[in-house]
Amino acid sequence: MLGLPPSVQRLIRELSKLPSIGERSATRLAYFLLNSDPALAHGLSKSLEEAVALVRHCEKCFFFCEEQLCAICKDGGRDSAVLCVVEKPADVVAIERVGEFRGYYHVLHGLWSPLRGVTPDQLRLKELLGRIDRSDGGVKISEVILATSSTVEGDATAMLIARSLSERGVQTSRLAQGLPKGGELEFADEFTLSRAFRGRNVLAAA
Amino acid sequence: MLGLPPSVQRLIRELSKLPSIGERSATRLAYFLLNSDPALAHGLSKSLEEAVALVRHCEKCFFFCEEQLCAICKDGGRDSAVLCVVEKPADVVAIERVGEFRGYYHVLHGLWSPLRGVTPDQLRLKELLGRIDRSDGGVKISEVILATSSTVEGDATAMLIARSLSERGVQTSRLAQGLPKGGELEFADEFTLSRAFRGRNVLAAA
Repeated sequence: MLGLPPSVQRLIRELSKLPSIGERSATRLAYFLLNSDPALAHGLSKSLEEAVALVRHCEKCFFFCEEQLCAICKDGGRDSAVLCVVEKPADVVAIERVGEFRGYYHVLHGLWSPLRGVTPDQLRLKELLGRIDRSDGGVKISEVILATSSTVEGDATAMLIARSLSERGVQTSRLAQGLPKGGELEFADEFTLSRAFRGRNVLAAA
Repeated sequence: MLGLPPSVQRLIRELSKLPSIGERSATRLAYFLLNSDPALAHGLSKSLEEAVALVRHCEKCFFFCEEQLCAICKDGGRDSAVLCVVEKPADVVAIERVGEFRGYYHVLHGLWSPLRGVTPDQLRLKELLGRIDRSDGGVKISEVILATSSTVEGDATAMLIARSLSERGVQTSRLAQGLPKGGELEFADEFTLSRAFRGRNVLAAA
């Protein structure tokens, strides 16, 4: 940082607070911004302030939105009988990109993790049960897809929710687990391989 | 981007304008900023605006500064007889980090490149010759170290400057070229190896 003006040092310090951006990348980004048209820095700064000021969580599903309800909850053309439960907003975007799921979402904003000190009451669980009990949208929710990650915490959270739902007469399902597309069997870990065997699909009956 | 509020989409778009940040990284950064304390986004936005508003080029050496002269040019304790010519401000920081060079700098802000349409008059060359002719700081500049990169453009720019200086009775030098520290000979390219041979240092005379 030797010789650099204080404002450049501050910019580098702020940029290095971002994930996966070390001091070296932050320095390169700062030089780039200072050598570019100032409109670039202004645009970035403005969009940062705007996003932080405008973005909040949807009152129904807790996805990102700028009003009371998110764009998905406001879409009346989806299937109110199916609810997909995910950990975080990014998961909603990932599933929407596939374009196959036509129900609504519920974002937990975390996973149950005793190790990291995250208790079930820190997740949007009460709100999930409330939606199911109230039958949001007038239609009874008949299936809840537990689309949490295939990790210890994702599995534990799915089990926890499945247990709460078992008394409510709602079908709960979990995303299929197995070999990823393009994944070579030789390099699959034992859990994935075991799950792929147990979940095998019959191609032709005997 | 499906379903994401407009302000989040704008933030992702602005972040992806930064070098080596694709849409995927930009999206991850945006989620991180939206899930963090808003102070983080405010701090980054403020430091961006401040840096762009305050930073300019030193009137003497064209390094970054916030006043007329940069911190290095204002330091009277350095050796006015030696001038180190570099391509860009980042190079000054890299050399200062080593802590061995005690002279002053001159930042060209580019390299001569007919291929990219950069002509010599787009560089801070006239100002460099002016500094040498005026004997800045009262002391005659006796050596100019041409510390441009070891690339075709860096070499061409160094040759161009060396030619202009030859009539001025100033010693010009070029950074040593050879194997980088930790560089294995087996993997060195032929130019590096050839330069390393030609520039070999005698360890014990016969």
